Amino acid sequence: MSGHRLNVHGGNIYETSKDYGIRQEEILDYSVNINPLGVPENVRNIIISNIDNIANYPDNECSSLKSGVSRYLNIPESKIIIGNGASEIISLFFDVIRPKRICIPAPTFVEYADTAKCFGIEVNYFKLNEEEDFKLDLNSLLSYIDDGIDALVLCNPNNPTSKLIKNDELLELIKYTYSKNIYIMLDEAFIELTERSNNNSMVAALNEYNNLFIVRAYTKLFALPGLRLGYGLGDESIIKKMWERKLPWSVNTFANCLGDIFTIESDYLLRTTKWITEEKKWFYNELCKQKKFKAFEPSTNFILLKILDEGLNAAILKDKLLLKGILIRDASNFVFLNNKFIRLAIRDRESNLKLLNALIEVL
Amino acid sequence: MSGHRLNVHGGNIYETSKDYGIRQEEILDYSVNINPLGVPENVRNIIISNIDNIANYPDNECSSLKSGVSRYLNIPESKIIIGNGASEIISLFFDVIRPKRICIPAPTFVEYADTAKCFGIEVNYFKLNEEEDFKLDLNSLLSYIDDGIDALVLCNPNNPTSKLIKNDELLELIKYTYSKNIYIMLDEAFIELTERSNNNSMVAALNEYNNLFIVRAYTKLFALPGLRLGYGLGDESIIKKMWERKLPWSVNTFANCLGDIFTIESDYLLRTTKWITEEKKWFYNELCKQKKFKAFEPSTNFILLKILDEGLNAAILKDKLLLKGILIRDASNFVFLNNKFIRLAIRDRESNLKLLNALIEVL
Repeated sequence: MSGHRLNVHGGNIYETSKDYGIRQEEILDYSVNINPLGVPENVRNIIISNIDNIANYPDNECSSLKSGVSRYLNIPESKIIIGNGASEIISLFFDVIRPKRICIPAPTFVEYADTAKCFGIEVNYFKLNEEEDFKLDLNSLLSYIDDGIDALVLCNPNNPTSKLIKNDELLELIKYTYSKNIYIMLDEAFIELTERSNNNSMVAALNEYNNLFIVRAYTKLFALPGLRLGYGLGDESIIKKMWERKLPWSVNTFANCLGDIFTIESDYLLRTTKWITEEKKWFYNELCKQKKFKAFEPSTNFILLKILDEGLNAAILKDKLLLKGILIRDASNFVFLNNKFIRLAIRDRESNLKLLNALIEVL
Repeated sequence: MSGHRLNVHGGNIYETSKDYGIRQEEILDYSVNINPLGVPENVRNIIISNIDNIANYPDNECSSLKSGVSRYLNIPESKIIIGNGASEIISLFFDVIRPKRICIPAPTFVEYADTAKCFGIEVNYFKLNEEEDFKLDLNSLLSYIDDGIDALVLCNPNNPTSKLIKNDELLELIKYTYSKNIYIMLDEAFIELTERSNNNSMVAALNEYNNLFIVRAYTKLFALPGLRLGYGLGDESIIKKMWERKLPWSVNTFANCLGDIFTIESDYLLRTTKWITEEKKWFYNELCKQKKFKAFEPSTNFILLKILDEGLNAAILKDKLLLKGILIRDASNFVFLNNKFIRLAIRDRESNLKLLNALIEVL
């Protein structure tokens, strides 16, 4: 981990704005994967009507949020932990479980390994092969993890590959690891941004398998990364320990007011599913027409691309697009990727057309 | 630490509201020690005008906040860490320093010991004597800490005793611990709520003594506990490690917008000093007239009281006052205190008169 460990993530429009002398609001951000439907109108209203409440300590037990998640996913409150973004949830998982060695299929979100290293945990990467379009080969993984691994970390759909593991394969993995006393941390941060939404989730398996822990967040779904709100679902005994170890009051007053968000924004959820189903397919097809790239077929709201042009790499392309006010994610720092890979968000049609035109112009 | 470790703190109006069937907004909260001038008007405006920014990740380097603290206290940015309330700062101190054994003069804020225990740190309490009005006896402390202590934790002014250690005594402590390679974590969360405000701070000593680490927060001063914003000041090498270990994006977008707060609210700061200087003295004198209590003279915005009436204790008094809509802090769970102690906030004159009348009525 470097000084400020997040410089390498997507979404750092502050630094980009400074470095390139572009005003923040003029940057079209394709480096971060949040719902382009934007912050729901109800959230704005809730914040405004609760401004006076910042003079009170937040509810440290997050009662209203727990109740809302419980109703949304039909899961008992005793299986729910609320935290300051998925980051605090991931950190609490390692803090409470304290695995010695974990397995992470990669390329994937860098924060699992970064956080694990903070706890002195040994990280073993299981390579997802480019030749297989980065799809998880279940049998290979099963034989790989059979050797001194305490926990398996999975991101589903996976960042940055945008690949989804199917429910039956996941269930097989969960059963196998359960039989071997291996924990699974399953990050479903993007699950509502897949076509089948929560039908792709493994929440139902929590009833039977106490080795399963699921990470979720409001961040991507409701376009709220600035508010800091994530949650975790797991066995009661683990959840209880997490509440004990958690940073006090880490979930702020405004975040605590979003307990009913899944209910009052049910239409937003439907519109989200409609958008991702249509736009993902259209954008992927358009990108496939660009012969200088290989586009890996996405299952959620971002696409991994490999630059085929010999004279071009991710850093150069990023620079060229920034001159047009578009920020993309140079994906070269993901484990097992290289300087030929970029990741693009999927946004609204108007923005996506701008991006496609910009790509044609710079290539 | 129990399940949800903060039930015993002041300020839990959510639980009180539920348990006593009183609406939150009807509770006059004397259990929490925040500035009764309330949330500054500029903060409201800043939040409203930045609502759209929650769709972006917060600035993880907190550049604007660092710059603001740097100007406010005339200290280089390299000596500043920003966090999710003082809680994250305290946790980072223990995480980075990893002392084996610490000394905490007590009674004091319970979170130092609770957090230390999360890190497996042994806590030695140094008793502040009631007979000496809970004032710190420097010589006794100096001889006590001379024995295998790695860090000393001080709260100044101290919660719940409201006692201030003078600058020259603190300097002697800092010099002594420096010579013995002992860290000092000095919590100045209430420093601007003393009559001499920042003149009571030891910030200037940071230049010379790299064993000194100061905890501060926006919480009490600007009445913002719901926004989660604290900071720490210390040696560059410690601060650098803290930034590395810190929970990513733990400071939300709204908190990140308060970089200029000390400048734009300079009048609020002056009014705060004026209020505390006048009201502290007046409220203390009024409480001294109540013969059923001993009031310990305060240096900041709360007062520790001992109930002298044999038939009364803190829990009974708390219940009686709640029937009148007033919530006080039962201080019996502070180390070395017992069920005769309560803590009262100092608020605006109108509220303080209400409290005094309620006290007279219930006694």
